[in-house]
Amino acid sequence: MDSKVVQAHNMWGNQIEVGATYDFSEYTVGEDEIIRFAEQWDPQWFHIDSDAADEGPYGGLIASGVQTIAIFQRLSVVAAFRHWHVIAGRRLRDVRFLRPLRPGTTVSGHLRVTEVDNDKPGRTLVVVQGELIGDGKPLFTSISEVYVRSSIES
Amino acid sequence: MDSKVVQAHNMWGNQIEVGATYDFSEYTVGEDEIIRFAEQWDPQWFHIDSDAADEGPYGGLIASGVQTIAIFQRLSVVAAFRHWHVIAGRRLRDVRFLRPLRPGTTVSGHLRVTEVDNDKPGRTLVVVQGELIGDGKPLFTSISEVYVRSSIES
Repeated sequence: MDSKVVQAHNMWGNQIEVGATYDFSEYTVGEDEIIRFAEQWDPQWFHIDSDAADEGPYGGLIASGVQTIAIFQRLSVVAAFRHWHVIAGRRLRDVRFLRPLRPGTTVSGHLRVTEVDNDKPGRTLVVVQGELIGDGKPLFTSISEVYVRSSIES
Repeated sequence: MDSKVVQAHNMWGNQIEVGATYDFSEYTVGEDEIIRFAEQWDPQWFHIDSDAADEGPYGGLIASGVQTIAIFQRLSVVAAFRHWHVIAGRRLRDVRFLRPLRPGTTVSGHLRVTEVDNDKPGRTLVVVQGELIGDGKPLFTSISEVYVRSSIES
């Protein structure tokens, strides 16, 4: 994986429209990566101890919810945010973990703009709804608020 | 840093009480770690390009919000979740990024139980409110829902 993403700032906040949808590329998460991530950030046994997890409620390891958010963010940056003049994320209104993310799953999904508020000169608050799908089923949904720079002419 | 955390499952969901508070240990985030994390999960220029960030709105690099969540999760596991029979996280109701997290900042904070619902036999839904503080100021707050196994006798 080439982890560096070219930045192409070609869209101002006031040019973003409600209903705009961005389809994600795919990301496949392996067992080693799940364990490595969770050992650092979420060291609970069902994320890091494969043998114990096999005997646990999920019948195997599952990825940390934080890693699910991280995958979602990467796919969001590649599909949408690198094309916007993003200032910063402000808030996650709602994040739901609907199904466990298991090793070997290929996830994809999309992002949809649901609100655009040109809240002060030079700055737009953009609300996006996101979804991750794995093996044909929804794994994860989120609603988040992102500040995007507006053009001076707006 | 020893990234492996001993699991000590000594608390059932029905033993957790509203108002219980868990103080976090400290975590210091460095510039290299901010860049490495963001190159993989959140490759936006203000997280990965130090020179550009110096000229940007924050006057320097800031950590990815996803990394802030990851640090919060690690501190939560060490302080609280490893002492509970956690089944899984279900939802983040609200996550707010109040101030940028900058290289060299030492963060700490706490977790407080705000709701406990023994929603079905064997399972308790625990709602926790969390906060991260850096250099004496609030950086991050969250409200999240975690399923915890209940004892059979409850």
